[in-house]
Amino acid sequence: GVLGSGDFARSLAVRLVCSGFKVVVGSRNAKRKASLFPAAAEVTCQAEAVKKADVIFVAIFREHYSTLCDLAEVLAGKILVDVSNNTEINHHKESNAEYLASLFPACTVVKGFNVVSAWTLQSGARDGNKQVLICSNNQEAKRTVAEIAQVMGFTPVDMGCMSAAREIENIPLRLLPAWKIPIFLALGLFLCFFTYNLIRQVIHPYIREHKKKLYKIPIEVVNTTLPCVSYIMLSLVYLPGVLAACSQLYYGTKYRRFPDWLDQWLQHRKQIGLLSFFCAALHALYSLCLPMRRSHRYLLIDTAVKQAVEKKTTIWVEEEVWRMEIYISVGIIALGLLSLLAITSLPSIANSLNWREFSFIQ
Amino acid sequence: GVLGSGDFARSLAVRLVCSGFKVVVGSRNAKRKASLFPAAAEVTCQAEAVKKADVIFVAIFREHYSTLCDLAEVLAGKILVDVSNNTEINHHKESNAEYLASLFPACTVVKGFNVVSAWTLQSGARDGNKQVLICSNNQEAKRTVAEIAQVMGFTPVDMGCMSAAREIENIPLRLLPAWKIPIFLALGLFLCFFTYNLIRQVIHPYIREHKKKLYKIPIEVVNTTLPCVSYIMLSLVYLPGVLAACSQLYYGTKYRRFPDWLDQWLQHRKQIGLLSFFCAALHALYSLCLPMRRSHRYLLIDTAVKQAVEKKTTIWVEEEVWRMEIYISVGIIALGLLSLLAITSLPSIANSLNWREFSFIQ
Amino acid sequence: GVLGSGDFARSLAVRLVCSGFKVVVGSRNAKRKASLFPAAAEVTCQAEAVKKADVIFVAIFREHYSTLCDLAEVLAGKILVDVSNNTEINHHKESNAEYLASLFPACTVVKGFNVVSAWTLQSGARDGNKQVLICSNNQEAKRTVAEIAQVMGFTPVDMGCMSAAREIENIPLRLLPAWKIPIFLALGLFLCFFTYNLIRQVIHPYIREHKKKLYKIPIEVVNTTLPCVSYIMLSLVYLPGVLAACSQLYYGTKYRRFPDWLDQWLQHRKQIGLLSFFCAALHALYSLCLPMRRSHRYLLIDTAVKQAVEKKTTIWVEEEVWRMEIYISVGIIALGLLSLLAITSLPSIANSLNWREFSFIQ
Repeated sequence: GVLGSGDFARSLAVRLVCSGFKVVVGSRNAKRKASLFPAAAEVTCQAEAVKKADVIFVAIFREHYSTLCDLAEVLAGKILVDVSNNTEINHHKESNAEYLASLFPACTVVKGFNVVSAWTLQSGARDGNKQVLICSNNQEAKRTVAEIAQVMGFTPVDMGCMSAAREIENIPLRLLPAWKIPIFLALGLFLCFFTYNLIRQVIHPYIREHKKKLYKIPIEVVNTTLPCVSYIMLSLVYLPGVLAACSQLYYGTKYRRFPDWLDQWLQHRKQIGLLSFFCAALHALYSLCLPMRRSHRYLLIDTAVKQAVEKKTTIWVEEEVWRMEIYISVGIIALGLLSLLAITSLPSIANSLNWREFSFIQ
Repeated sequence: GVLGSGDFARSLAVRLVCSGFKVVVGSRNAKRKASLFPAAAEVTCQAEAVKKADVIFVAIFREHYSTLCDLAEVLAGKILVDVSNNTEINHHKESNAEYLASLFPACTVVKGFNVVSAWTLQSGARDGNKQVLICSNNQEAKRTVAEIAQVMGFTPVDMGCMSAAREIENIPLRLLPAWKIPIFLALGLFLCFFTYNLIRQVIHPYIREHKKKLYKIPIEVVNTTLPCVSYIMLSLVYLPGVLAACSQLYYGTKYRRFPDWLDQWLQHRKQIGLLSFFCAALHALYSLCLPMRRSHRYLLIDTAVKQAVEKKTTIWVEEEVWRMEIYISVGIIALGLLSLLAITSLPSIANSLNWREFSFIQ
Repeated sequence: GVLGSGDFARSLAVRLVCSGFKVVVGSRNAKRKASLFPAAAEVTCQAEAVKKADVIFVAIFREHYSTLCDLAEVLAGKILVDVSNNTEINHHKESNAEYLASLFPACTVVKGFNVVSAWTLQSGARDGNKQVLICSNNQEAKRTVAEIAQVMGFTPVDMGCMSAAREIENIPLRLLPAWKIPIFLALGLFLCFFTYNLIRQVIHPYIREHKKKLYKIPIEVVNTTLPCVSYIMLSLVYLPGVLAACSQLYYGTKYRRFPDWLDQWLQHRKQIGLLSFFCAALHALYSLCLPMRRSHRYLLIDTAVKQAVEKKTTIWVEEEVWRMEIYISVGIIALGLLSLLAITSLPSIANSLNWREFSFIQ
């Protein structure tokens, strides 16, 4: 059974019919809405639909839950699946599913399917995220809904009891939560070092020698800033592991929880590492572009002309040559190794490695 | 039960035996073929095999289906799994599975396992595509076959009723169907712009000033062509979304189907975007190679020598310097952002994002 | 039931409780250890725990299996799940699971969960490798354990009968076994070609003309070595396929097993190919860095100055210009194609291609 006639209700009905279930849809305007549903689904009034179904998907907004109270008697003993989402994180005091359960104490409420979009439901679960997170206080009901999800082509994931509903309802509202701190960290570091390099390479020469080197800002200043950010981010990946080990040694046990800030830090290591790699890759790209610039060309010609005019024939500073050769060659090797780390953090690669291989590469 | 003694029948028997099923193989040359099958599988004549099994995999060619007609009586009531493939898309009027069902109306026919290669069957489903698409008009039979697939280590995907058999049979014959139009589009655009740039950079200077600049064809002309193609492809990614929104606003509803051409276009956006990224990446690579070329070196030395001879000491066109610095720096940032888009379109990354995150990045 | 009180036993109990199972833990120091387990799990003495449970996870070291012998009577008829790992590959003559089965002939032993780390158990199976490899001689028991794994959020993979236990126990100890031979091969080839290029580009000019060109070692010598390694590795990817086809033609059958060395070689093709791509990508990076070097700059200025002093105005060797243009442009195209190959070997991309598409691209 499906209660509701919105986008999600319709997509759900389509998918259920396609998966071989008998579907009955309960809508307050059954006649007007019937044309929107697949022909194989029976569209009727809400009370009728509830009577005929054992598992009922409640595809209506939380605000309208109370309109179902008239059906409380027919609903008694049925499994209600709450598929609703909120528009804000932690919008209400209690999760939608817990609110539904409090309205209908005689029903078994299962939270699920809210992480799936109407579009995924309709187009089938062949691409995209196939996980359906489910929670309920009743194991039997949870298993029934998990089986329905499986037949529909999704991968049910048991999230435990009803108290997990709030977390499940927050998931579709999240916007890369693990990336926020690392990105602000990288931006902050970038700004600091950019200011320092700007003063050193542009402002200081201007004040001291009145040389106008503003043209260095878009490429050269950025290019000297990026590796500093990359280095510090990379060290921030390995530092918390060392701190954690020290804390374990100090307290003499590994069963003591780390302080919250260290725990948070440990969990953001992957994101910090990937941003470090991103900065390093940009630095490589910027460096490779250096000889393409007009300014490089002009300076080169200028040096050549000056030397030719002064009839100096050969310049060759062995130390500078070696410094550059070694700098570039170490840089390439470092970038190659960082690339390996970045590739092994791709989910599909990481999944094919066992724990020993993963820690060996890292 | 397995009917047939080809590669696929053999691999199927191996896999079934390994997964703990009792297997009986029916072959017309049972004695001669027995050595090809694993020892644990019983190889016997077809009628005998059919009698002993409840689920029968029909691993013979469509052309030979009619030879089974003698067995119609023993087959009655059994589940037949059609694992056959065609050699051409839409080769026959009706799908193989529907043809089999029409020959044996007393049997329940399930289509499945045709997307799996004999090699995948034998080597186990640990890598590679593990999906087994299944369809049938009988829910019970479909569930039985889905369970067998699960135990064999595959992921059964319910494709609905028998009419989906044609689609399932076409899948292994497809050759990147979603890529055909975008690739031809990119090639067409490339040819147009290549011709234009060839005329502008090579033919026109030759006609007007008799300068031979043929050497520019392999790198410089290609390099000025690639970003044009990339830009147009990128705009073609975002244009259909705008058109779709306009159409929804115009008709005042989002339940009206888009015209077919727009629907097709919307579905090809990912491929068009990836080709746009590919062109942009090639353009970056070509540009980075410019200073490595002999011609670049010769032109540079030539300019230096001319200036030295004329005793001009300093050239420095501020405008040209700035134009190049800004061009390169914007190019790098654009490539960085396009890389992010390309990475998030990897299936394993896309699966780990929720809808809101995906649309934020895109 | 869980026997043991180590890290793994604790994580297992946590996960089982979270998945809605009733858990009873048997520990020899039940009172002292109870605080380490979740409140919902009952912690008691071993005999008591065994009596209450039907499926018992034996989370103790192989060395202590014999201490369970006192419980043999209560254990009779139960399903024992061996979750143990070894510290070395093939450490003992028989696998841990087979040893456990020999100690308790009245029990049904199932091997499983050893490939999962305690950390994955506790943090839930949402990321990382979700496969749980299971084997047993008893189909019923195997199915029961597979169902438990499924409810816990893992993907059970049936590995067949008990003789597979040794293989399953070796898996967590493996360290990229498929990469060892290809990496040593690449290193060997690199050393050979590096020595040859070192002699040719550095030692020979020094002996013949006393030119000191040591500065060429870190970049130029490495850069001429990498494409040689890449080429040979690439040819080693395609050679075994040709050899296999020849062998099939010679023997007139495709059912004859290939000799072991050819089989090994065929299985390492993917790794050899990826190393070939890695060398090619490094070669591209090294080549792009060439114009950034001081030595490049000095040699360029030197040439310009010499020409200016000698009043030679124009140099332009058409052949050298063309050779370089074509060399670079072919190099870019080759790298682009190799990148496509490398991308399609990512597990998540490879899974979305059918066999025909994969072989078309390769």
